[in-house]
Amino acid sequence: MTARNTTVKADANAPAITEMLAQFVVTQPSRSWSDAVEAQAHRTFANWAGCAVGPSTHETIEAALAAIQELEPAKQAAVLGRSERVDMANAALLNGISSHTFDFDDTHLKTIIHPAGPVASAILALGEHLGSSGRQLIDALVLGVEVSCRVGNAIYPDHYDRGWHITGSTGMLGSAAACSRVLGLSALQTQMALGIAASQPVGLREQFGSMTKPFHPGAAAKVGLMAALMAKHGYTASRRALEAPRGLMQVFSDKTDWREITQNLGKTWEIELNTYKPFACGIVIHPAIDACVQLRAQHNLKPEQVAKVTLKAHPLVQELTGKKTPSDGLLAKFSVFHSCAVALLYGRAGEHEYADKVVTAPQVIALRDKVELIVDRSIHEASVDVTIETTEGHAHHIFVKSAIGSIERPMSNAQLKAKFVDQSAPILGAAQTEKAWGLCMHLSEQEKLDELLQSLTRR
Amino acid sequence: MTARNTTVKADANAPAITEMLAQFVVTQPSRSWSDAVEAQAHRTFANWAGCAVGPSTHETIEAALAAIQELEPAKQAAVLGRSERVDMANAALLNGISSHTFDFDDTHLKTIIHPAGPVASAILALGEHLGSSGRQLIDALVLGVEVSCRVGNAIYPDHYDRGWHITGSTGMLGSAAACSRVLGLSALQTQMALGIAASQPVGLREQFGSMTKPFHPGAAAKVGLMAALMAKHGYTASRRALEAPRGLMQVFSDKTDWREITQNLGKTWEIELNTYKPFACGIVIHPAIDACVQLRAQHNLKPEQVAKVTLKAHPLVQELTGKKTPSDGLLAKFSVFHSCAVALLYGRAGEHEYADKVVTAPQVIALRDKVELIVDRSIHEASVDVTIETTEGHAHHIFVKSAIGSIERPMSNAQLKAKFVDQSAPILGAAQTEKAWGLCMHLSEQEKLDELLQSLTRR
Repeated sequence: MTARNTTVKADANAPAITEMLAQFVVTQPSRSWSDAVEAQAHRTFANWAGCAVGPSTHETIEAALAAIQELEPAKQAAVLGRSERVDMANAALLNGISSHTFDFDDTHLKTIIHPAGPVASAILALGEHLGSSGRQLIDALVLGVEVSCRVGNAIYPDHYDRGWHITGSTGMLGSAAACSRVLGLSALQTQMALGIAASQPVGLREQFGSMTKPFHPGAAAKVGLMAALMAKHGYTASRRALEAPRGLMQVFSDKTDWREITQNLGKTWEIELNTYKPFACGIVIHPAIDACVQLRAQHNLKPEQVAKVTLKAHPLVQELTGKKTPSDGLLAKFSVFHSCAVALLYGRAGEHEYADKVVTAPQVIALRDKVELIVDRSIHEASVDVTIETTEGHAHHIFVKSAIGSIERPMSNAQLKAKFVDQSAPILGAAQTEKAWGLCMHLSEQEKLDELLQSLTRR
Repeated sequence: MTARNTTVKADANAPAITEMLAQFVVTQPSRSWSDAVEAQAHRTFANWAGCAVGPSTHETIEAALAAIQELEPAKQAAVLGRSERVDMANAALLNGISSHTFDFDDTHLKTIIHPAGPVASAILALGEHLGSSGRQLIDALVLGVEVSCRVGNAIYPDHYDRGWHITGSTGMLGSAAACSRVLGLSALQTQMALGIAASQPVGLREQFGSMTKPFHPGAAAKVGLMAALMAKHGYTASRRALEAPRGLMQVFSDKTDWREITQNLGKTWEIELNTYKPFACGIVIHPAIDACVQLRAQHNLKPEQVAKVTLKAHPLVQELTGKKTPSDGLLAKFSVFHSCAVALLYGRAGEHEYADKVVTAPQVIALRDKVELIVDRSIHEASVDVTIETTEGHAHHIFVKSAIGSIERPMSNAQLKAKFVDQSAPILGAAQTEKAWGLCMHLSEQEKLDELLQSLTRR
């Protein structure tokens, strides 16, 4: 120990954020929002479920499940896409991991939070155990996503820039809030649950490209579920765990804009701003893929015609997805170069286009090497400027302001269903997939979750 | 999303810390250290075990156990001081919580890390399930503590000053390392375990005074155990999860002195610097309690003689323990004022002196109100300057350079045993306590852990 100056910047006058969010979660009436919000909540749930079923036999899930089996868990709750059952906390973990394994889940573009994973994974497992209704789950989903995303709004971008994977480092709060709602906790208990969860932020951006990236929303789901259970039984935490000078938000972000939490709470809804990925990779690559798909179609481009692809994009594209020579599918999801190559070759970038054997195919690598990325701070991170020079000497140009899947160009329900079927049918079969889609999109009408869970699992 | 500057300071040239620590954990030969280190490891284990048994019927443990029981856990591992058994991950959690509940556990003074909780709680639960030997546990304890404390040395004090409870936010690495050793993982698997754990730092200083403070070492123990199990089954993480620009250490500390990890690794041992608390409260209060106990004895002071107590101490004493009017026992552990009052009244500050009824006793409050704290940056945080003015007009002065329990004035084995008995005997009875102490202090000689575990639990 050495004597030192212990003064660290701190805002001791922050509003009572933890208490305010707890009150909101407990007192907000069921379905007290517009039809548009309600519809978006169902789209969010259905998209999440499809994304959790798709990778359910992936080695990431096999490894996590094998570790959990060593604990000899009680068979309390479903693992989506599979026949095994585990205790509800580990079901939340597994389904959360699965939903993010293909990097295909939803995105709250204001913060790059993938909000469903931590929240939906926790409440489905808890709701199954408790015998909750679909209405309870949709309410909890809307409220939990609101908590995660508002905290995200208050600390983004500083928190993210520092290196936190904001999905996991705010998701445990959304999960704690949503589970508290499903459990019917009091406002004080919910405040305690948020506090217990606040001590357990999950996730580093350094993990991108490894199995630990999808671990983050799963771990956040589990943290929130356990925090709510502990609060139910009287476990205590700081009442100001989020906002105090040594509370979570000031500890892990230099930016803390409290108004992002206090203003219009219960009146505007962040889930309404949720978006769904048409491409199975990091969201900042989507404009570039969209541009390549469009140029390919407009000019009927063949791979052998492409001489050079020049991308101008925001610095974040380089920072997050600048892997020039990814060696496998997981790494390729963070390579704008690989993504543009498959977009030009196949006109799409679904999970198949990130298979290991596609990533190492000579034809893909040859095209990938022709892609150049120029960092341009004047271009918004939702946009891209792409020029393709052909071997015949032509130059084709496109500027994409907002990619397909964004708020400005949302996926239709039909497109979302096609994505759901693409992921679910190989695992659960066509008939069960059709049924599952319908039940997800009408979750709030279901008295019990049994039928839904049967449709999302194997016998 | 808004365009922005995403440049954050980062050291891209950090040495391969994660790999280096993994190699160290896997290749360091058993008991390749001095007798002094070996003895300290046993003292650390025994002190931890006593501290875990003491609070085993406390409401903190009752609440956490009730939440865990909702998962219907398998009866894999012991909860110390109790008859219940839970799965090994939750046993690690519960024993880790328990060991820190009275704030009476060990302290690595260079970092204020309480190193045993996260490590010992995890390896005892894992070792029970695997049928490990005492030798394996002592080896893993030494190595795990080394990992936590070296990472702590590299980032302390910046990391702590920012608001992290460093015990939990480095402890998950020590637990992952130690559990990897007990499981016999490869170097690469151990590297992955450290990586998985790196995404899950636990603990905010804001929680001090609530049940979530002792939750931190417990949660860290569980995180590390699960990370090792996942790595065993092939789960992956970044190979540079600790040191990369977006890795744990750079994300959560502005100070990253890599030499604290690389220099003399496997040659010097941080566990040799471990200390044990004679008083059941925050370590920075200990010099003040020691001073009051000494002045009381030297001058045969009666409470009614005390007119005023003036403490001069380092700013950290104010920051961490400046609660003037604590309302219960948990808060009183962070009140230098209450602590000095009981030291003057009773000549001690064990767990009994932090009971709620003591904290609210009029006699204690009257004395507490006579204590004044003056912040003095020239005084080291391990020291204190105390003057007591009496109603007769005398002034008694003492300067305590190092408190009892520090490296300079360590507790003897006899004093450690007395502390163990004080905590264990009311729970397990005198005979079983005597046996447990002996088995803890000779852990490395035991082929199996059965007898030890029987001695530390109830039928």
